[in-house]
Amino acid sequence: MVFKEIIARKRDGHELRDEEIAFFIRGVTDGTIPDYQIAALLMAIYLRGMTDRETVALTREMMHSGEVLDLSDIPGPKVDKHSTGGVGDKISLPLAPLVASLGVVVPMISGRALGHTGGTLDKLESIPGYRTDLSVSEFKEALRTVGVAIIGQTGELAPADRRLYALRDATATVSSVPLITSSILSKKLAEGIDGLVLDVKTGSGAFMRRYEDARALARSMVAITRGVGKKVVALITNMDQPLGWAVGNALEVVEAVEILQNRGPEDTTELTKTLAVEMLLLAGRARTPEDARQQVDQALASGRAYAKWQEMVRHQGGDPEAVLQPEFIRTRFQEPVAAPESGYLAAYDTYALGMAATVLGAGRLTKEDRIDPAVGLRVFKKVGDRVEQGEPLLEIRANDPERLRLAREHLAGAFRIAPDPVDRPKLVLERLA
Amino acid sequence: MVFKEIIARKRDGHELRDEEIAFFIRGVTDGTIPDYQIAALLMAIYLRGMTDRETVALTREMMHSGEVLDLSDIPGPKVDKHSTGGVGDKISLPLAPLVASLGVVVPMISGRALGHTGGTLDKLESIPGYRTDLSVSEFKEALRTVGVAIIGQTGELAPADRRLYALRDATATVSSVPLITSSILSKKLAEGIDGLVLDVKTGSGAFMRRYEDARALARSMVAITRGVGKKVVALITNMDQPLGWAVGNALEVVEAVEILQNRGPEDTTELTKTLAVEMLLLAGRARTPEDARQQVDQALASGRAYAKWQEMVRHQGGDPEAVLQPEFIRTRFQEPVAAPESGYLAAYDTYALGMAATVLGAGRLTKEDRIDPAVGLRVFKKVGDRVEQGEPLLEIRANDPERLRLAREHLAGAFRIAPDPVDRPKLVLERLA
Repeated sequence: MVFKEIIARKRDGHELRDEEIAFFIRGVTDGTIPDYQIAALLMAIYLRGMTDRETVALTREMMHSGEVLDLSDIPGPKVDKHSTGGVGDKISLPLAPLVASLGVVVPMISGRALGHTGGTLDKLESIPGYRTDLSVSEFKEALRTVGVAIIGQTGELAPADRRLYALRDATATVSSVPLITSSILSKKLAEGIDGLVLDVKTGSGAFMRRYEDARALARSMVAITRGVGKKVVALITNMDQPLGWAVGNALEVVEAVEILQNRGPEDTTELTKTLAVEMLLLAGRARTPEDARQQVDQALASGRAYAKWQEMVRHQGGDPEAVLQPEFIRTRFQEPVAAPESGYLAAYDTYALGMAATVLGAGRLTKEDRIDPAVGLRVFKKVGDRVEQGEPLLEIRANDPERLRLAREHLAGAFRIAPDPVDRPKLVLERLA
Repeated sequence: MVFKEIIARKRDGHELRDEEIAFFIRGVTDGTIPDYQIAALLMAIYLRGMTDRETVALTREMMHSGEVLDLSDIPGPKVDKHSTGGVGDKISLPLAPLVASLGVVVPMISGRALGHTGGTLDKLESIPGYRTDLSVSEFKEALRTVGVAIIGQTGELAPADRRLYALRDATATVSSVPLITSSILSKKLAEGIDGLVLDVKTGSGAFMRRYEDARALARSMVAITRGVGKKVVALITNMDQPLGWAVGNALEVVEAVEILQNRGPEDTTELTKTLAVEMLLLAGRARTPEDARQQVDQALASGRAYAKWQEMVRHQGGDPEAVLQPEFIRTRFQEPVAAPESGYLAAYDTYALGMAATVLGAGRLTKEDRIDPAVGLRVFKKVGDRVEQGEPLLEIRANDPERLRLAREHLAGAFRIAPDPVDRPKLVLERLA
């Protein structure tokens, strides 16, 4: 096969054959196709698109470009969740142990902070001692004994994605539905799971701001996961305001513990429960949504979910007590952002809130940036809330006066107050299965 | 400027700004932009296109990526011709000395055989001693003393094109109108010319087979040349059959000499005269087409054009007498391709004829292939001619039995004979100015 002919066929809008896609991913993985030819094909895919058939083949080839975990010797159904990322989205932290406490094995491989969004690994690494770099055998051992582990990407899973992602990032070809779909799913499916629950975010704090883009991605991911033979459901959820009260790594761990202790904020508790219900249903651990909901409520109320969290943290080397101490989230500066007038909070520029947290040190602008675990934002007011002039909407928590100043700039005007009452936005916008 | 943002703007169909195009070509020339980012932009340009404004800026930047010849100290108008290439297209060989014999300076920088088409340099190099690798100062000296020189691309002219062309070739982005236009014109305009006559080929032996594609390219090249401030005219000409009787390097030199001695085939003589008229008019050496035509007829009839050819060949180290000897075109094998039935020759698959000549050794399938100067095809019958069963349409001239066999395969069925009379095709299809 001549790779240039494959580029030409996609350039002209043709559907690539399975063997052409296999040849492509083999050449990406073993290095025989040069970067510039890969880049040209990526741009052709970006502009010409891919059918579901092509995306299934691409996902399958990327998934098999490295090791695919075999969890068949671990008893019980294996289900994971993936979120496309947002601001204050700490749901993986309470969700994974909650579901594991109900007999579902959760082999979760997560990512780091990117752009304006936080990363599950960075949040967990704010816990003293917590190791996210388990080897494959340590990961399997944790799943066998605890039933849940949250770790970072290992070099052995879907290595083709690493090369492709680096090239997409350099060539402005990241935001393509088939390329996003295959990148996410190849890594998730290499975990050896039976089913996957997808949380596709839309709104001012999401990567897919527009509803139709989020819907297209959700539709694609559902079709492709099913095409690869796995169970799947996708929820399209609101990211027009931060989730919960915490934005920042240690702060979000504290909120996660509150959720697990059944005293968390309404929105993040509700989203955790909703996603847990979907995971239990996919896993076959509940017959009806009502049954699943009851199990979830009970696991949170009884302390069973929180106990599983403590077990998971301890098993990965972390100290679950440390996160309960005030110094865990202590910062040099705490500065409110006050409402300039009275009325109703009508909107947040959630992207700006995410950027404020990032410049404080909660995220990364370049891969080399170091995370400051304690910094971030507290969110006091949510869309629809009544606010009085001078009342704090947010609190900036910083360790560096220059970063505090930058965050303040990002937050100036990053909200809108209306004179008349505003509806509270729906959290779950659509369910695709 | 961030190059990724420039890629993203073209990806989204925006018109690039002059400074973005300048940044691009600067980075191509000095090596600061990596191949994979260039490749992604090339594919985005291929699929999104470029406006004339963008293509003018691209051409200008590529032209100025290296040296631009200053011929202002050489008296007289400087005009060149460019053909997009075809089978049997030896027109540059008689045309350049013919026009030079009438007082127009012709600084012609030409290319080599590519794919199924021949190359002017390979044809000239079949002449014993002929040097195509003149330095810039030798080139200028030849123009000053002889008024014409035909040489190969030098490293100093439009170096950005070399890197871009190599990447286009590897990434299936060659056949894009703005990329072809800027590639051709940047090199031609770096010759320091005042005007350019374009011969854009269309038909079964051309790169632009479809008339509308040839027309789009001709329109673009005229607009861009004018946009850069030079005089220009384009003819769209027929490449549905080989030009003249000779396909192959030494054979084509012999036909060129016949044209210069005013005893050439009708079609190539007529095309040479037509293009010469356009060059004289652009150069301001004739007031009317009739005046120009009269000068051209006279230069050929008087032997003045042929004398200029001899002078040019000698000045570049070649022996103009050698091409008159029978051994110049002697081959081991001469084999006719006979008409399988009587009727009228209705069509040639001119691409197949070009490929037959290439596999004989007249062209190159890879850059490393060596040219065999003597081999090629003689064409006895043209479209519209009456043919009798068993009469030779073509003659294969080969030096190697295996190559002869391959050529025979390419020629099997590469023509069509009709029972009823067939119109002779028009040679010049359209003129754009």
